[in-house]
Amino acid sequence: MEDLEIRAAVAGDVPAIVGMLADDPLGAQRESPDDLTPYLTAFERLSADPHQHLMVAVRGDRVVGTLQLSVIPGLSRRGATRSIIEGVRIHADERGSGLGTRLIEWAVDASRDLGCVLVQLTSDRTRTDAHRFYERLGFEPSHIGFKLRL
Amino acid sequence: MEDLEIRAAVAGDVPAIVGMLADDPLGAQRESPDDLTPYLTAFERLSADPHQHLMVAVRGDRVVGTLQLSVIPGLSRRGATRSIIEGVRIHADERGSGLGTRLIEWAVDASRDLGCVLVQLTSDRTRTDAHRFYERLGFEPSHIGFKLRL
Repeated sequence: MEDLEIRAAVAGDVPAIVGMLADDPLGAQRESPDDLTPYLTAFERLSADPHQHLMVAVRGDRVVGTLQLSVIPGLSRRGATRSIIEGVRIHADERGSGLGTRLIEWAVDASRDLGCVLVQLTSDRTRTDAHRFYERLGFEPSHIGFKLRL
Repeated sequence: MEDLEIRAAVAGDVPAIVGMLADDPLGAQRESPDDLTPYLTAFERLSADPHQHLMVAVRGDRVVGTLQLSVIPGLSRRGATRSIIEGVRIHADERGSGLGTRLIEWAVDASRDLGCVLVQLTSDRTRTDAHRFYERLGFEPSHIGFKLRL
């Protein structure tokens, strides 16, 4: 198997990232991979914010995974900066390969390098496999995640 | 009762904010209100990031509530920008006064004005009163929130 590279996403990666976002039981209902315009606009917003890190995992010349790491300063916990992981997706061909672990380990190491003392993420209640995965990596399911659609 | 103002926090508000963070069953274990240095450093980091909104609710000349609103662009959900609410605290004298509702309604309105299509937050599993409060305001407890301390 070819070597894996984890690097910052570029605009040319957007179609592959959107493909992975849509190839998912929840994503299938809320993504529109046939119209990339809103995604490219969002990519510009992401690129303009130095505290957002949209990453891709690349094997050979194929994008096989993605996640977004956001760095959030704050006052609580003695002025702790925390990171938030969002949008973790692994290409269907690579599931079970350990790539998810590699990506999350990358995010944890990067968070430490960026001065964060806490990494957090939320996972839909229905993604029970993901919950076991995060617990194996040391994450504690200590919170309830609430969402309000506007 | 005097009128309430919700405004961006300034450095002079930090002691009152830290006092509220520490006056809490969970915060009492992890804050250090006698040493404001790390909080003032964190306030500088917050102030330097235009996507962070640390707010205070002020009645008369007293800070009686606080929250932090973070704006996070992203690719998922058709390039949705979302907001995250963190660090919601209401002064002990004001609990049950409706101030929490006022603050969250402010955050929801501000999120909409900032182009967000989703507002999210996590709440410790032990804060069952807070869970009922967020559900009353329309938030859905659809996710599990995971944390990893570094």
